[in-house]
Amino acid sequence: VLADGRILNLLSKLKKDNTGYDLRNLFIGAEGTLGIITAATLKLFPKPRAVETGYVGLKSPAQALRLLSIAQNEAAGSLTSFELLSDLAVDFSIRHGIDIRDPLTTKHPWYVLMELSSSRDDARDALEQILAQGMEQGIVDDAVIAANLSQRAAFWKLRDEMSAAQKPEGGSIKHDISVPVAAVPAFIEQANEAVVKLIPGSRPVPFGHLGDGNIHYNVSQPIGGNEDFLARWHEVNEVVFAIVLQLGGSISAEHGIGVLKRDELPGVKDKVAIELMRSIKAMLDPQGIMNPGKVL
Amino acid sequence: VLADGRILNLLSKLKKDNTGYDLRNLFIGAEGTLGIITAATLKLFPKPRAVETGYVGLKSPAQALRLLSIAQNEAAGSLTSFELLSDLAVDFSIRHGIDIRDPLTTKHPWYVLMELSSSRDDARDALEQILAQGMEQGIVDDAVIAANLSQRAAFWKLRDEMSAAQKPEGGSIKHDISVPVAAVPAFIEQANEAVVKLIPGSRPVPFGHLGDGNIHYNVSQPIGGNEDFLARWHEVNEVVFAIVLQLGGSISAEHGIGVLKRDELPGVKDKVAIELMRSIKAMLDPQGIMNPGKVL
Repeated sequence: VLADGRILNLLSKLKKDNTGYDLRNLFIGAEGTLGIITAATLKLFPKPRAVETGYVGLKSPAQALRLLSIAQNEAAGSLTSFELLSDLAVDFSIRHGIDIRDPLTTKHPWYVLMELSSSRDDARDALEQILAQGMEQGIVDDAVIAANLSQRAAFWKLRDEMSAAQKPEGGSIKHDISVPVAAVPAFIEQANEAVVKLIPGSRPVPFGHLGDGNIHYNVSQPIGGNEDFLARWHEVNEVVFAIVLQLGGSISAEHGIGVLKRDELPGVKDKVAIELMRSIKAMLDPQGIMNPGKVL
Repeated sequence: VLADGRILNLLSKLKKDNTGYDLRNLFIGAEGTLGIITAATLKLFPKPRAVETGYVGLKSPAQALRLLSIAQNEAAGSLTSFELLSDLAVDFSIRHGIDIRDPLTTKHPWYVLMELSSSRDDARDALEQILAQGMEQGIVDDAVIAANLSQRAAFWKLRDEMSAAQKPEGGSIKHDISVPVAAVPAFIEQANEAVVKLIPGSRPVPFGHLGDGNIHYNVSQPIGGNEDFLARWHEVNEVVFAIVLQLGGSISAEHGIGVLKRDELPGVKDKVAIELMRSIKAMLDPQGIMNPGKVL
């Protein structure tokens, strides 16, 4: 529903349609600033026949990237999760989560949680192949495959608790960034260095969707640090976003712009893109009544 | 490059970016009416390790749809082609193509050409599974798997010659339509009936990408018919497009609007969508210098 009350019907079920401009994607991700989405068409897929989940210990994001490449090759389209987890993120989850145990017997600097979902029965075989190749090539230092549904749930709980588990550690300055997938190791290395230089003792807790190049780059306050830490949110943002931009990345991979990042947008986005966004906004909502104050 | 000379840089390599409106998809498919695309970012994938191609004889588009469902399930993401071919389309190719032989020993009312491309070595096994299940369920009446690269090329030549092979049969009135995948059998049945009723003796030659719901619905002139047939292009269009619209489809799945379908667009597209397209065009190209006369 547009600002002037007109109803735009884009509920097509078609996979291919080349009749004019793609208006649907203009409204998706516009955060309600161009109109209100009141209906959607969903495509349903059969429930996967086999889901297999593996938890891997390894040395670095660069090694995780090599493992991702093997996994994409061997899983042939059925790789549905590939989460990169830093040791500190895992430690926090185990320390502060309820009933969470370390799936591996020894500590590693980095971890990967990966999942294959297939409509065939071959997911187990593929996951074993991935881990075997990873071990042969010296990428995987240790690994375990969930033996049943409750073990699988335990692996995911470790991951799902990561945001909450940062709270007992004090203030956390958060970023939801993306870079080209191949640039994730460089991003983490440079950001860690820059952040710790800016605030000595601060503790980066990166984790996220390596397969998407999307890292939740959170920074916990120094141990025993005081509440002034959060007052430096903007300074830390600046340092992290500069590295993101230099690597061709985005300061908001998933969460959008909203109010919080609105004032940063003109500094990080192509100038002409911002102009076009303003023109489209002015055209569709000249009185500025749709979700005012957001995005632009 | 926009009409006023501004350069909009959308060459991002990111998989996820939620910083404002999706401008890239606005320009893709706009047929140059909003700006000129001068650069693109491409993602490369490794060459598939295994490619397997099958050619199937079956009774109807409805049976082909059931086979598609089995194939999507068993191929688990590695199904890369699923072409539905009518008997007449195949006959024309064999009759008029150079050095094209029927891959099967007997005639069938319909055919499917399908291909699996996998980064694993399991494509052959998956294709055999698909065909075996299809036979068990009484869907597949006969089938052959390409034994080598030259046989695979021969299967594809049969398909690739289909447009050219209609020429020696006289005039052909062409449509590039899409409907929801599940509606393809209904579309073909209704369109065949309506077209033959309108021009007795005319010969529908449907073929295309069943997996995309995209059928090249071509109609050859009656045997011995004269050149007046092509003068009825618009009438045939009207009959076919009415069925497309009633099934929630598109009158241009792949080829765009251009000049040829420009005048039909307002009759088949959501009214508000057309208004928005005009507003965007006026905003970005007020003097109408970008590919004038096309689309709108």
